[in-house]
Amino acid sequence: MTAQGIRAHLESRAKPPGSLGRLEDLAAELCRIQRTLRPVTRPRRLVLFAADHGVVAEGISAWPAAVTAAMVRTIAEGRAASSVLAEASGTDLRLIDVGVEGPGLPDGPVHRCRKVRQGSRNLAVEPALTVDEFRAAMRVGEEQADEAHADGVRVVAAGEMGIGNTTPASCLTALLASVSMDEAVGPGAGADGPTMERKRRAVRAAVDRERPRLDANSEATMAALGGLEIAAMAGFLHRSAELRLTVVLDGFIATAAALVAQRLWPGTRSHLIAAHRSAEPGHAAALRHLGLVPFLDGWNLRLGEGTGALLLMPLLDAAAAVCRMASLSDVTGEPA
Amino acid sequence: MTAQGIRAHLESRAKPPGSLGRLEDLAAELCRIQRTLRPVTRPRRLVLFAADHGVVAEGISAWPAAVTAAMVRTIAEGRAASSVLAEASGTDLRLIDVGVEGPGLPDGPVHRCRKVRQGSRNLAVEPALTVDEFRAAMRVGEEQADEAHADGVRVVAAGEMGIGNTTPASCLTALLASVSMDEAVGPGAGADGPTMERKRRAVRAAVDRERPRLDANSEATMAALGGLEIAAMAGFLHRSAELRLTVVLDGFIATAAALVAQRLWPGTRSHLIAAHRSAEPGHAAALRHLGLVPFLDGWNLRLGEGTGALLLMPLLDAAAAVCRMASLSDVTGEPA
Repeated sequence: MTAQGIRAHLESRAKPPGSLGRLEDLAAELCRIQRTLRPVTRPRRLVLFAADHGVVAEGISAWPAAVTAAMVRTIAEGRAASSVLAEASGTDLRLIDVGVEGPGLPDGPVHRCRKVRQGSRNLAVEPALTVDEFRAAMRVGEEQADEAHADGVRVVAAGEMGIGNTTPASCLTALLASVSMDEAVGPGAGADGPTMERKRRAVRAAVDRERPRLDANSEATMAALGGLEIAAMAGFLHRSAELRLTVVLDGFIATAAALVAQRLWPGTRSHLIAAHRSAEPGHAAALRHLGLVPFLDGWNLRLGEGTGALLLMPLLDAAAAVCRMASLSDVTGEPA
Repeated sequence: MTAQGIRAHLESRAKPPGSLGRLEDLAAELCRIQRTLRPVTRPRRLVLFAADHGVVAEGISAWPAAVTAAMVRTIAEGRAASSVLAEASGTDLRLIDVGVEGPGLPDGPVHRCRKVRQGSRNLAVEPALTVDEFRAAMRVGEEQADEAHADGVRVVAAGEMGIGNTTPASCLTALLASVSMDEAVGPGAGADGPTMERKRRAVRAAVDRERPRLDANSEATMAALGGLEIAAMAGFLHRSAELRLTVVLDGFIATAAALVAQRLWPGTRSHLIAAHRSAEPGHAAALRHLGLVPFLDGWNLRLGEGTGALLLMPLLDAAAAVCRMASLSDVTGEPA
């Protein structure tokens, strides 16, 4: 299945060539990743990874850390944004607690407890995670990719819940995507001016401290600036790509995880479809660095929880449907 | 159900206020139009209106007129772009032949024959339709809105198939949306340079001839520059709005029909949700004139057949789902 063969198939459908614009690009991506002219978009699954962040102690978030556990409960009960959008788009939802502070919920139909530790350390003053913790969290993500594959899932997405997690995502974006620290820092879930200033200070301190050892020990550097759910998403994205699943990439935090995965396993990006460009300023630069062009532009999403990926899911159905149209020669009765 | 009440409901869901961006705007539109905090998005129906255009004699299209009838067959057989996208989005599809050249197909599960006449006249040299023909075509559209309403349909869209129909749409856009004639003319389904020049000439001749009587007799002017499927869509849009259905507006041709409907029945626009901004240059100006901001931007669709409206349908499901989320006070345990 060459890129040319895919384009020829799409251009010969019963319509002016290219007249479905970006929908044809999306169809071509599905065909390329799945190596077929008959791509499938179901079953599909969103796996959310939740964890807390020690850097919240720096006053970098508009929300208290306890909201992470409260939202985990809300997601497990099926009443969060990700729950209702997963249901609306026919997407199976899993929620993995990879490091939320507190005892955690018992395993349930949606929720699994796989805590690597109780939140990360405060990255502004010390490494957030050791390499061992970072790897353990990545393994949690890899296991979820294996499970999705074993369950016959064909399209996956990773999402997150973690108060404060735009701060490690900004660090990783500044570190890995050649973005200035100031461009990499945005308001996240609603930080005001003073909160933003504290966030910028935390990101600068952490990145200045850790950057010198990136080339010598990239894993330790990413662990020091990361978070448990980010590491888990990186493992999930990489392993899903390895298993040849179609991977829909969510917003700023998920894309920071993709930067990590791409650094460790350079083939990852070619299995990713970027769902949207979020309101967070560093996201566009991170996507550019990965060579991805997002499909939903101007929607100004900044919630996380995989909600942007869920919005694109039904448009994957539409793109796959385009592949099933009659050909132009069927319509005109002439040989192609 | 005030606009403030709707915003308050959406802002108090379990997420940072406004963090779902345009999806919250779409949810607010559904609530406003349906006057409820629990909007519904199914059952839904796309009604396609098909007709031919005498102006094709001027060499203004990249495609021969016979393609209209061929595509009507393909749509009736369920193998066109609109067919597969309607199926993918759970949207019922109807196809009404309001004036395709030739005998027409027998009525079937998708297709109905309601020809007002065999195509329109060549608008470059004479009025395309008489006022009586224009009104008869509008009635065909109104009947389809009545039927959708009687069938319990809650969300509707109008689409079209008609080789050459960007030319009357350009005329109506120039006439009704205060757009220069050159800005109103685009490549449509793939016109090359010389074809575009003939198209510009046809539009200028027709609009210059007809514009002087717009204020004295707007119906005659719109009939002279219109087409049978455009008139039918105008009737459908207006009557659907009158019946308080939620109306998803497709691309350039459908928006030209909305300009006609809005001119004759000024309340129409407040029931319309603009699906996308098409690749046709006059479309953005027409939407601005109606005060509508499209939801899908940068998709570069230029096929017609209601395909842009179909792409938005599952995003309406997502928007309606947002209204069903837990409230923030449910999550935090505090009174709102």
